[in-house]
Amino acid sequence: MTWQEICKEKKAHQLDGVPKEWLASDVPPATQLTVIDYPQQTKVLSSLDLEITESTVATLLANLASSKWSSVQVTTSFYKRAIVAQQLTNCLTEIFRDRALARAKELDEHLEKTGKVVGALHGLPISLKDQIGIKGIESSMGYVSWVGKVVEKNSVLVDILESLGAVPFVKTNIPQTLMWPETFNHVFGRTSNPYNRSLTSGGSSGGEGALIALKGSPLGVGSDIGGSVRIPAAFCGIYGFRPSYNRIPYAGCANSMVGQDSVLSVLGPLSNTLDGIKTFYKAVLSERPWLKDAMVIRKPWSEEEYKLVEHGNGGKLCFAIMWDDGVIAPHPPIRRGLEITKNALLAAGHQVIDWKPYKQAEITQTIGAVWFAGGAEDFRTDAAPSGEPVISSMGILAEDTELSFRPAPSSTSAFELWQIQKKKGDLRQEYLGHWADTVSQTGTGRPVDAIISPVAPYTAPPHGLNKFAQYTMTWNLLDHPALVVPVSKVDQAVDVKQPRSEFYTDDDRENYELYNPATYENAPISIQVIGRTMEEEAVIAMSEIVDEALRKT
Amino acid sequence: MTWQEICKEKKAHQLDGVPKEWLASDVPPATQLTVIDYPQQTKVLSSLDLEITESTVATLLANLASSKWSSVQVTTSFYKRAIVAQQLTNCLTEIFRDRALARAKELDEHLEKTGKVVGALHGLPISLKDQIGIKGIESSMGYVSWVGKVVEKNSVLVDILESLGAVPFVKTNIPQTLMWPETFNHVFGRTSNPYNRSLTSGGSSGGEGALIALKGSPLGVGSDIGGSVRIPAAFCGIYGFRPSYNRIPYAGCANSMVGQDSVLSVLGPLSNTLDGIKTFYKAVLSERPWLKDAMVIRKPWSEEEYKLVEHGNGGKLCFAIMWDDGVIAPHPPIRRGLEITKNALLAAGHQVIDWKPYKQAEITQTIGAVWFAGGAEDFRTDAAPSGEPVISSMGILAEDTELSFRPAPSSTSAFELWQIQKKKGDLRQEYLGHWADTVSQTGTGRPVDAIISPVAPYTAPPHGLNKFAQYTMTWNLLDHPALVVPVSKVDQAVDVKQPRSEFYTDDDRENYELYNPATYENAPISIQVIGRTMEEEAVIAMSEIVDEALRKT
Repeated sequence: MTWQEICKEKKAHQLDGVPKEWLASDVPPATQLTVIDYPQQTKVLSSLDLEITESTVATLLANLASSKWSSVQVTTSFYKRAIVAQQLTNCLTEIFRDRALARAKELDEHLEKTGKVVGALHGLPISLKDQIGIKGIESSMGYVSWVGKVVEKNSVLVDILESLGAVPFVKTNIPQTLMWPETFNHVFGRTSNPYNRSLTSGGSSGGEGALIALKGSPLGVGSDIGGSVRIPAAFCGIYGFRPSYNRIPYAGCANSMVGQDSVLSVLGPLSNTLDGIKTFYKAVLSERPWLKDAMVIRKPWSEEEYKLVEHGNGGKLCFAIMWDDGVIAPHPPIRRGLEITKNALLAAGHQVIDWKPYKQAEITQTIGAVWFAGGAEDFRTDAAPSGEPVISSMGILAEDTELSFRPAPSSTSAFELWQIQKKKGDLRQEYLGHWADTVSQTGTGRPVDAIISPVAPYTAPPHGLNKFAQYTMTWNLLDHPALVVPVSKVDQAVDVKQPRSEFYTDDDRENYELYNPATYENAPISIQVIGRTMEEEAVIAMSEIVDEALRKT
Repeated sequence: MTWQEICKEKKAHQLDGVPKEWLASDVPPATQLTVIDYPQQTKVLSSLDLEITESTVATLLANLASSKWSSVQVTTSFYKRAIVAQQLTNCLTEIFRDRALARAKELDEHLEKTGKVVGALHGLPISLKDQIGIKGIESSMGYVSWVGKVVEKNSVLVDILESLGAVPFVKTNIPQTLMWPETFNHVFGRTSNPYNRSLTSGGSSGGEGALIALKGSPLGVGSDIGGSVRIPAAFCGIYGFRPSYNRIPYAGCANSMVGQDSVLSVLGPLSNTLDGIKTFYKAVLSERPWLKDAMVIRKPWSEEEYKLVEHGNGGKLCFAIMWDDGVIAPHPPIRRGLEITKNALLAAGHQVIDWKPYKQAEITQTIGAVWFAGGAEDFRTDAAPSGEPVISSMGILAEDTELSFRPAPSSTSAFELWQIQKKKGDLRQEYLGHWADTVSQTGTGRPVDAIISPVAPYTAPPHGLNKFAQYTMTWNLLDHPALVVPVSKVDQAVDVKQPRSEFYTDDDRENYELYNPATYENAPISIQVIGRTMEEEAVIAMSEIVDEALRKT
């Protein structure tokens, strides 16, 4: 078979296990761009399905634990909504209904028999980015050459999630190579943004973004090496968390550029509510993942850090807003999102100062140089066996060729790579000092407690145009935990284009010219809350504070 | 000046700041091999000097805190003994008496004025491996091209030690490049073993090993990327600790192969007593080094882990002895050291089983491949500017050429390096499983609590013959904390050579042939206690248990 035939065959069987009655027959035509409200209209979903799928993770877990709802019921409701989401945005890869419902049934029986839940995530369906290994399920990650290779052993995370009582139920779409901030591959195709299908869902965890925004999953797991959890979370208006390196176990997952030990990809949760993020993070750590994954840091959840003991107990915090990185100025809706956040925090009694960007261009250049020291060979090696080309554009048309995330064929030596990595180390050390120096500006006696920054210099752009990922990549190089919080949506009446005549860079001008309020109408506006390395608990707590302040306004 | 002239000039001024009365005039001739007892005989040291320098770290700190001994007194006593050690073994690089005594005086005045100690290490002199940056002092690290370059800023560790009240007072010798398990460079020459000067002190922290064995310092800091703390500790009969990656701050130190982000060098303490090791480790963490060094893991000292809560509260532990790695069998004294340890632990009521080696040859091959992917270029780059050659042997005669630690000029690409690092990741994950699987053999309901292993397949060998470092390198690749505990000394009457006719490998045969009891007479015998990644507290606690059991026998 040619690689095209393999793709066609795989795609043709994608919905094989799905009952006909789960498939909506009246899905909106491709010309209808906004589909975010469609699940509430389709007859496929009963009122109970809607009640379940629109519950918070906390409510779901409580109702599962009290047996108000069975896991079979909850999993079925989310499955049905996930299939609707698939029909609307093409967000799924693997669907394994029999396996998931059998597990849900086991959990229900266990609860009935023992009166006890299996663990902190008892009965909760959970979606997983395609690369996360589940025994018996494929992890082709959009490479044609990997289609048909069934995973022989659960990844450590899946083992842990199952021992906590979670029910993995679908896998979600990614871009070929994972190294794109959009979601398209030859096997499963393209994922669209449910708020506006002419826009990207972001990537590389774009399937998770679209699925969760449509409430087809209460909790999902993505991965983030340069923004791949946060970009889809921001573009799709949900919460998404990038923890520090080596907190959530990665062992047993497929990945790109395996062996690149310097700027690490991390797994992180996405959810419609912050309680989903916290519940996931705390539950996974409770299973002592360092005993199962050699790379995971032996550091349990710290209630003290969550209570912000090192941040004045959370009483009066000082946030610093990075309005602009001095390289590419964000579009008007992003600036408005930051202003809303600032006012909300001031109204809640916190302090807000401006964050001074530090060597942003060097940081972006350095992280790219680490990745692409061997990136081209890595992508070629994985793509080549099937004959499929390495994708060079996320655009819809071949003319949209966009190479900014594609490395040139590399001739970097190991020694040269070390010099780049040395530069990275220097930047991390300098940045820590830059942060510490803010103690003179805060008036709290502490340095800035958290940074608030755009997630990208725009809301979700049209397919193929998500070219600038430095607002997320920065925190991957520095290894700072960062949590995306939704703020608002684009309103073309308010987010008008402002005249500008001077630009930082050519990229800045290009980005300015890209903005046209009508194109972005209704796209979610988000921010990210950023802490220092391994301050996961504090970042979650401070994001709760930001979120609460925002919900009050 | 030629590089030889630079070396001569530097060496000629090494003792410039040392008062004449500190220099012993009756040092033993070079033909006297054992000099370990000489400090007790020389007239340079008063009885108070001897009392002070033979005290434990705990006693020193108590007497400093109570003002029984001033820091000026304690620092002076150790200085005098360090200079004696220098005359005997050539263990020092930089000597900065004025700076150190001025700091000691400040500390004394502070204590007198406030009645309070500055910190947990108040007044304690501390020796530092040459690479550890002290403001105003050189860190030439044995590279001629770095001679004369004065460090402009304290390393983070020195800042922390000074804020704890410690008094850095000498820097210690290293091999050129740091990547040798012996200690020789063109600038400062060779460090010998005080138990037998025809033997190596080990390396790369060999200056620390010889100095502390001679009680010329109560506490020192070395670095360890493949055994460089543990080998000199073991060869010199002292305690030495290799913590996990990124626990002790490294920022601001000179190093080899900077930017090699995969198998990391770590700083660790050496001391004559275990309390020195624990005191150092706990004190450094108490200063929250993650706020000052971007690479340090945000994980405070855990009293719970020190109390061995996860190891049955330390009641009945199960140790596993790795008698032999299946690649190179240790010499008879090493085996006897393990037997002594086994019997001591059994007598103390613990359990001892055999450790099954796992892919030891692959582990050794992989760590070497990571280092030497760019090692040759790194060494050449640092050595070249002065014209000095990269040293190719630690032997005394040029004919002793020994290339096993020298990389071939490299043509490894970044992508090839990633494949080696991928292998490393796989080995770490497999080894964790191998350890977890021992739960079926221990009878404690837990996997093995700690491994006990040789530090090298021999006690300190003659200069130039320390060729096999895999007994330490293994734990660097796996990132397991390991603490060296002295056990006994070679006794040629007991440690006779046993006939062997079959060998694992050519290296094994070579190592067997090397053994000749008379050559090794009086050399210290040591073991290392090994825990899992980031189990520093537990490894210290279990080493205390091992040490106590040994002292009782």
